[in-house]
Amino acid sequence: MTSAPPLHPFDDAIALEAAGPHRYLGRTTPAYWNMIGPFGGITAATLLKAALSHPERLGDPISLTVNFAGPIGEGEFEIEARPSRTNRSTQHWQLELRQNGEVATTASAIFAVRRETWGCNEAVRPAAPAPEDVPGLPEGFAKVRWLSAYDMRPIRGGKPTAPDGTEHPDSITEFWLRDAPARTPDFPALASWCDSFYPRIFLKRAGFVPAGTVSLTTYFHTDADALRALGDSHVLCSARAQVFRKGYSDQTAQIWSAGGDLLATSHQIVYYKE
Amino acid sequence: MTSAPPLHPFDDAIALEAAGPHRYLGRTTPAYWNMIGPFGGITAATLLKAALSHPERLGDPISLTVNFAGPIGEGEFEIEARPSRTNRSTQHWQLELRQNGEVATTASAIFAVRRETWGCNEAVRPAAPAPEDVPGLPEGFAKVRWLSAYDMRPIRGGKPTAPDGTEHPDSITEFWLRDAPARTPDFPALASWCDSFYPRIFLKRAGFVPAGTVSLTTYFHTDADALRALGDSHVLCSARAQVFRKGYSDQTAQIWSAGGDLLATSHQIVYYKE
Repeated sequence: MTSAPPLHPFDDAIALEAAGPHRYLGRTTPAYWNMIGPFGGITAATLLKAALSHPERLGDPISLTVNFAGPIGEGEFEIEARPSRTNRSTQHWQLELRQNGEVATTASAIFAVRRETWGCNEAVRPAAPAPEDVPGLPEGFAKVRWLSAYDMRPIRGGKPTAPDGTEHPDSITEFWLRDAPARTPDFPALASWCDSFYPRIFLKRAGFVPAGTVSLTTYFHTDADALRALGDSHVLCSARAQVFRKGYSDQTAQIWSAGGDLLATSHQIVYYKE
Repeated sequence: MTSAPPLHPFDDAIALEAAGPHRYLGRTTPAYWNMIGPFGGITAATLLKAALSHPERLGDPISLTVNFAGPIGEGEFEIEARPSRTNRSTQHWQLELRQNGEVATTASAIFAVRRETWGCNEAVRPAAPAPEDVPGLPEGFAKVRWLSAYDMRPIRGGKPTAPDGTEHPDSITEFWLRDAPARTPDFPALASWCDSFYPRIFLKRAGFVPAGTVSLTTYFHTDADALRALGDSHVLCSARAQVFRKGYSDQTAQIWSAGGDLLATSHQIVYYKE
């Protein structure tokens, strides 16, 4: 007698059950729990998974915008994933996550069939020691469960270090990242990685304040084959803020392959209370 | 006998007529025409205007994502603007522009009531000579009508200069910008300015190729009073790409007040054919 290998916790977390046209059922899992709800990255990944699973899906994702409209509680939720327009080589999606009849998250995505063209990386991967030479997060770094689902190795801006209440000179964080246990990446994994930075204000103000992502937009600059080829290598993640003003700050992030390819660029607007 | 002053071309272009719950009617105007449809910035501004005009609207815009799903032809269109969730101090919007029964553009926006908090500009405005010392675009710069609706004064990367087909070292463009004729800015004007850069690939490859914005996300870091206080001053606009790959490139942009405040940060993913 043989049994199926156990599902990776990430695959378990984003698992969806088709429940009629444009409709999918999912549920939160403890492995990706944040402070009072699921980690935003796993919500983004699950929404993207719904479009990827849809029978009318065309091509690969090129952009994903997720608007975190309200809290998601422990338990089941429903996703509506609807193509709003399909062209010859692009497809536009509207997505909505509801729980107990209320809209918790809205999203839009664009998929495309991509062709070989001239291309270049204008941005350059930050220099960094090899992942095997960088220690992981120290024990007790933060009391949120989802961090254990990642092997995160900070190179810069790992932990706010300035005396509490003083200002850090910049809001740059860089780390090597891999799923834990290691998992060959796909688009949902990449979407999730883009939200793996703590709020920039924690670093800038060197301390904890109530804060949370309000809207997250990710552009994908890679394809399924290139993601698969990454295997169990780490990716280099980099983020910074440009401005903090009247309760909201931005964050702009890059996810790089170890080899220097820019896999995704991602932006978010983050609420903070000071 | 007195008559009302003529409407500014921008106000004329984004004018909407309420046509029932969540429904607004608009039409294209020649002043903001691009090559084969309206300038993307004016479409973004018009969608934002619909949410701003809505009787249930709460606070000021903090983010706007516009997905350009299909062409918009000359003439009338219809916008559906619907709040999908209203919280105590934030409000989430779904927007859709339809023409002849077909979805041409989808969008989402988040509005918020903002409070005074600690804040800072981490990014720094690029150095630039005063706008009055910078000449405008040369006669015949580009044969698109919407450019005449702007007073654009390039500081850097104004025109692709490398020999055709060779590669420009970077994709950075900076210019002073103001509506023409001058107009005291509001959120729709700011939303439109964010799309006023030509596609980065024109600069990088030093020539014209078919290209167009697929999705545009703008974060607003200012408020209505601060915008009004800008009066008829120019703003400094800066943009660059990070990557060009398989038919799509990104663009990240900043809009600065002359005094150095970061008014908006904006990102887009752009299709190109090479």
